[in-house]
Amino acid sequence: MIPVNPERFLAELHELRRFGASGVGKGVVRPAYSKADIEARQWLAGRMKAAGLKTHFDPVGSLFGLAGEKSLLMGSHSDSQPEGGWLDGALGVMAALEVARASRETGGPPVSVVSFQDEEGRFGVTTGSTVWSGKLSLEAADELTDRDGVGFAEARASMAHLTGDFVDPAQFDGFIEMHIEQGPWLYEAGESVGVVESIVGIRDMRITFEGEQNHAGTTPMHRRRDAFQGLAEFNARINARFRNVVTPATVWTIGHVSLHPDAHSIVPGRAVFSMQWRDGDAGRLARMEEIIRETAQEVATERELDLSIGPMLGLEPMDMDAHLRAALEGAAEEAAPGRWRRMPSGALHDATNVARLMPSAMLFVPSIDGISHAFEEDTDERDLVAGLKVLAGAVERLQG
Amino acid sequence: MIPVNPERFLAELHELRRFGASGVGKGVVRPAYSKADIEARQWLAGRMKAAGLKTHFDPVGSLFGLAGEKSLLMGSHSDSQPEGGWLDGALGVMAALEVARASRETGGPPVSVVSFQDEEGRFGVTTGSTVWSGKLSLEAADELTDRDGVGFAEARASMAHLTGDFVDPAQFDGFIEMHIEQGPWLYEAGESVGVVESIVGIRDMRITFEGEQNHAGTTPMHRRRDAFQGLAEFNARINARFRNVVTPATVWTIGHVSLHPDAHSIVPGRAVFSMQWRDGDAGRLARMEEIIRETAQEVATERELDLSIGPMLGLEPMDMDAHLRAALEGAAEEAAPGRWRRMPSGALHDATNVARLMPSAMLFVPSIDGISHAFEEDTDERDLVAGLKVLAGAVERLQG
Repeated sequence: MIPVNPERFLAELHELRRFGASGVGKGVVRPAYSKADIEARQWLAGRMKAAGLKTHFDPVGSLFGLAGEKSLLMGSHSDSQPEGGWLDGALGVMAALEVARASRETGGPPVSVVSFQDEEGRFGVTTGSTVWSGKLSLEAADELTDRDGVGFAEARASMAHLTGDFVDPAQFDGFIEMHIEQGPWLYEAGESVGVVESIVGIRDMRITFEGEQNHAGTTPMHRRRDAFQGLAEFNARINARFRNVVTPATVWTIGHVSLHPDAHSIVPGRAVFSMQWRDGDAGRLARMEEIIRETAQEVATERELDLSIGPMLGLEPMDMDAHLRAALEGAAEEAAPGRWRRMPSGALHDATNVARLMPSAMLFVPSIDGISHAFEEDTDERDLVAGLKVLAGAVERLQG
Repeated sequence: MIPVNPERFLAELHELRRFGASGVGKGVVRPAYSKADIEARQWLAGRMKAAGLKTHFDPVGSLFGLAGEKSLLMGSHSDSQPEGGWLDGALGVMAALEVARASRETGGPPVSVVSFQDEEGRFGVTTGSTVWSGKLSLEAADELTDRDGVGFAEARASMAHLTGDFVDPAQFDGFIEMHIEQGPWLYEAGESVGVVESIVGIRDMRITFEGEQNHAGTTPMHRRRDAFQGLAEFNARINARFRNVVTPATVWTIGHVSLHPDAHSIVPGRAVFSMQWRDGDAGRLARMEEIIRETAQEVATERELDLSIGPMLGLEPMDMDAHLRAALEGAAEEAAPGRWRRMPSGALHDATNVARLMPSAMLFVPSIDGISHAFEEDTDERDLVAGLKVLAGAVERLQG
């Protein structure tokens, strides 16, 4: 196996969290294009150069450390949520750097490293890798704004003194991203590593029930067309009906609710809410959509509500590359025998986009209590090292 | 019976709706202290003077037409909702004026007339009669502001050239308010008149479920502490449990819902919502409160949510005066035999406040389709006249 250095890897990982260190414990505030983010990227570039890689910032600020020949690309992102943890994407970047460096030091296979910009979606969703994959043009990205109205064009201009052209993806054989799971499955099972089979697909829509706004004192219950009651009934029915369709990994969420006029003394005339569901199987996503549409229509008819359903956002499930997965699985069985599993990813990652350009795969390590996107996010350092070793083992296997 | 003149009454009622005429049909926009409201009150004062009453505006702009001796007080309010109908309180004012005038013309019992200011609550709730009743001091009322930040003190100053001191309630034997029902009961039953037995009591509180905000992709269903799901479950259970406790006149409403962070991709960590219920019986209101508190606690415990319940706003049910009610019931049976009923009022009215000062009672006429607080609000003119005659009949009976 490529002789990675766990102490060096962990020391650098802790060094990186000084940029934007905040909140409790190992908390980090390092959103894309913040001072802390840009400084961290410049520090990273220095570490890459010291490892013998050629550094390059692309037009949006994604940082590449290039091996200079046809190579495997590894990495993730070093920007954080507005209130984030020290690992998230940073882990995948630093593990990739350690593998690239150790391989280079010992004459192993060439490995390039990347830290994509704005994975956490200050502007879009996985913005840096989305633009690199060609799914979103730079011109279209420049129209995006953050919550405070700052434009993407303005934000990336703050890195203009560092950036050059886009990196040609043809120089890479494939992409492997290591990341924390952000869910509880590995942690609950006491396992160290997860090899991702697919990144789940997402369906997301807005549903509106329109009833009749009425006086909450003089309108008897039998005369009401209460839009909130429609929503509550819809929610109860889909929860019951999904039971026959879902797996333990399927998730669905009503995260946004807006009532009109939203007053204590008025029967709600309108309820607008979000309905989002995720699963690794496109067929199951479609079956759930049928249930949602049928149930919403049924509730609307029974309660004399008008129903409207907005456009559906659809991201297809993305299968990970079989060849890369096999290498990760073999390395996992060697580094953590009996303490790893195959699993879907419930969250989107840069790998979803990179998979449009080249064979791609992902590796998870546990999140303690399933917590992420919070200062409390953490992972046992033995599991971080196990992940590093699986990554190194997979590179070796791919060379063979 | 006092020989009221239905044509004169209806003609004046239509004349009044010219002030602020708006929207479709007989719609009116005449909120408290608007130009239309003040002009309407000045026109009303003119009609009162012509009927031989002594007019007086109190410090908040409530207009009295005084009989000048110990008298029965009748009336309601002439301000409207931001988008209101032509009847609402205006009906009660104009019917009172016709009865007072007809009685005076024919040597009948003395009747005084009132149009309270801001019943519709641009500033508070039934503001003019609340201040008159002593429940809210003028100083405290002056601290109120409307939705646009205009102060009550500033608003009432716009009538300062018209106003004098408060009217001494000791000059009145009692108060009768005629009003549209604002609900569907009389209209659905094809009845003309309702004699109000009590004005319902209200209980109103804010309930908060606090769960755990989580990633909607990586948090499995079995690990979620979803505050919205807590709300939906609470709603379903109280709906089921109330069935054994309520009457057809009982109402309850969840009209306000606020989720945090209220995003499609995040499991809601917090749900704040309003719970309001109304009934004419204080014991039933208390039993419902028990069910609400028990059910909320039960759902919180089962779903590992934190529960907090805000202060409860309580307005007690207000029984109408038995002697005045008997006079209205006798007159109703004479004017609309078999086409009237005893009923509760689901809405608050000025009579709730005036009942603190003197014996009070209320009379309802039907609202077509139960609609009010809307341009479409209307009542068959035959029912308006029936109400007028019941009012006149009751005055006659009270004299006897």
